[in-house]
Amino acid sequence: MIDRSALGAFDMPSRFRRVRGALARQGVAGLIVTDPPSVRWLTGFTGSNGLLFVDAESAILITDGRYGDQAPQELAAAGVDAEVRVTNAPVDELTSLVCGREVAVEADHLTWAEHRSYATAFGTAPVAFDTALVALRAVKDGGELDRVRAAAAITDAALAEVVGTLAASTEREVALALDHLVRTFGASGNAYETIVASGPNAALPHARPTDRRLGRGDLVIIDVGSLYDGYRSDMTRTFVIGEASEEHQRWLDVVLDAQRAGVAAARPGVATRDVDAACREVIAAAGWADAFNHGAGHGVGLDIHERPRVSSRTDDVLEAGMLVTVEPGVYFAGSGGVRWEDLHLVTATGLEALTHSPKDPLA
Amino acid sequence: MIDRSALGAFDMPSRFRRVRGALARQGVAGLIVTDPPSVRWLTGFTGSNGLLFVDAESAILITDGRYGDQAPQELAAAGVDAEVRVTNAPVDELTSLVCGREVAVEADHLTWAEHRSYATAFGTAPVAFDTALVALRAVKDGGELDRVRAAAAITDAALAEVVGTLAASTEREVALALDHLVRTFGASGNAYETIVASGPNAALPHARPTDRRLGRGDLVIIDVGSLYDGYRSDMTRTFVIGEASEEHQRWLDVVLDAQRAGVAAARPGVATRDVDAACREVIAAAGWADAFNHGAGHGVGLDIHERPRVSSRTDDVLEAGMLVTVEPGVYFAGSGGVRWEDLHLVTATGLEALTHSPKDPLA
Repeated sequence: MIDRSALGAFDMPSRFRRVRGALARQGVAGLIVTDPPSVRWLTGFTGSNGLLFVDAESAILITDGRYGDQAPQELAAAGVDAEVRVTNAPVDELTSLVCGREVAVEADHLTWAEHRSYATAFGTAPVAFDTALVALRAVKDGGELDRVRAAAAITDAALAEVVGTLAASTEREVALALDHLVRTFGASGNAYETIVASGPNAALPHARPTDRRLGRGDLVIIDVGSLYDGYRSDMTRTFVIGEASEEHQRWLDVVLDAQRAGVAAARPGVATRDVDAACREVIAAAGWADAFNHGAGHGVGLDIHERPRVSSRTDDVLEAGMLVTVEPGVYFAGSGGVRWEDLHLVTATGLEALTHSPKDPLA
Repeated sequence: MIDRSALGAFDMPSRFRRVRGALARQGVAGLIVTDPPSVRWLTGFTGSNGLLFVDAESAILITDGRYGDQAPQELAAAGVDAEVRVTNAPVDELTSLVCGREVAVEADHLTWAEHRSYATAFGTAPVAFDTALVALRAVKDGGELDRVRAAAAITDAALAEVVGTLAASTEREVALALDHLVRTFGASGNAYETIVASGPNAALPHARPTDRRLGRGDLVIIDVGSLYDGYRSDMTRTFVIGEASEEHQRWLDVVLDAQRAGVAAARPGVATRDVDAACREVIAAAGWADAFNHGAGHGVGLDIHERPRVSSRTDDVLEAGMLVTVEPGVYFAGSGGVRWEDLHLVTATGLEALTHSPKDPLA
């Protein structure tokens, strides 16, 4: 259902420019990139073991023998001008590249043990890179948006197929059907572990599917996303099996109002904590402040949780080209819960939803 | 196909005894466990955000509001006597637990940034734990073995179902069918991303499935495992579509001999580098030393790559109760490759295979 040939290219030169600009601002000679999604973002390399060294002139990917053929192929396909070095001694290789200069590392990804071994090998301890690569990754290019849109469209199509089967199924059966459908429709996998949480299980925001059979009157939270060419989508719908009780209908309505309030508050220049607060106020006004026990959203891209965070505990600010979920929820232990979540592109004037599944909760 | 009620219990008290023994030997007051599989190993908690503080008397799991209900349920189900604290300020909570004492951390898992924030908050930098928790996890208890055996049996059953369909399928279709079958048979998912690599793609040890259709004369490497109640299995078979060329048959035979040599060399007390060497010698004798470009195996458990490593670059030694793969392979760029892999339990006298799919390469 996705036309691969219509997907735009990634703007790789702009990514290296942003990284080298940050290096120059900080006054360090080079950067060692260790977080696999960031290595992929800069090079197109998808292997599990790769270190990227970047300085003002060059970029060198260090990997092991398993990727000796794959790595050069992927870099060439991405149009990235970087050398590949295959070795079983990556720290020795890095030491010769660093060559006594002051270099930076990703302090949030490098382990403490790795930092100690780099410091010993290099002779000088690497410093923390001032700029989080996830922050540079927050504003997406056209190639990235095409892939996230594809992931979202695949998920919409898969969910549409299972809605009619909910009443006869277990949580695990619904999850299995969804996961099979997203791959049948062209995804390489799920963006994260699919949540199908019914009845009392819906009170656990991160429940795993069980063998519980969906029964009349149950609320059912389905949180599902696809992985398409490395990029992810994220969406949650809440369904009712049969007819909603008055109490459940009120949960559904209030959380939907909260989501609308969050979306209405969002546009470039707005602090994400204000988007979080807009959602939270609606739920608090209903008397359920404590039942909304997670942040209101997050960025999405190569990782399922990226910048910006949408939370009361962040200073992140929205910019055009970012992707954010808005996903308020309420959870009542032993009883159930509701969550509505859509993935949006931040445009010049507000949010454009990329997930389009209907919000008709009657399954 | 798996009888859940027949699965043995985990020996949780023994795990805490081993950790507290290591704490006492090192002379530190407590340990902060941050690697999610190790947190799960000690507590049964399966959430994505949990820190475990262990000292001589107590164990406290620190998590966030999403897991406020799930965490106590999971700890009670595992029979673990640990307190759960829900907070958005985990470092503050840790600081009060540490209370000025010298504590250890997992240097291979804690990020450098986390180590710095702990050092600042605690007033004293935490030290590296001398004992890798993955080393303590290497010898499995009966409950763990039951689950790995279940994962292996599910994978055997799934592979048996697809063998007859290979000739008419693409790599992606075969992978999709396998992944659906393992979940239909009771797995919660794959142990890792399934590899189906045919023809020239089989020259990439970690190839991802493509839309390439399996054709006559192709070698097809299928590397597949299941996830069952948190535990993983791992197995690789190589198939031939139609009849093997003389060259391909020789690759298949030599790598099988190499695997048998590795298995024959393994028993408690043997250094894993000698198992690796036993595999490598057979392949080198055929003149293809450079074509075997990865280690000969690894432990498996809650993670797909655990202790012991089976490699020329480790000092790990086999002990009864460990699980290890033996998986030699040869890879010829542009042409193809062969890998045979089985997962084994180290018994008192040698290795017992847990994966049982036939090694008849003719699909």
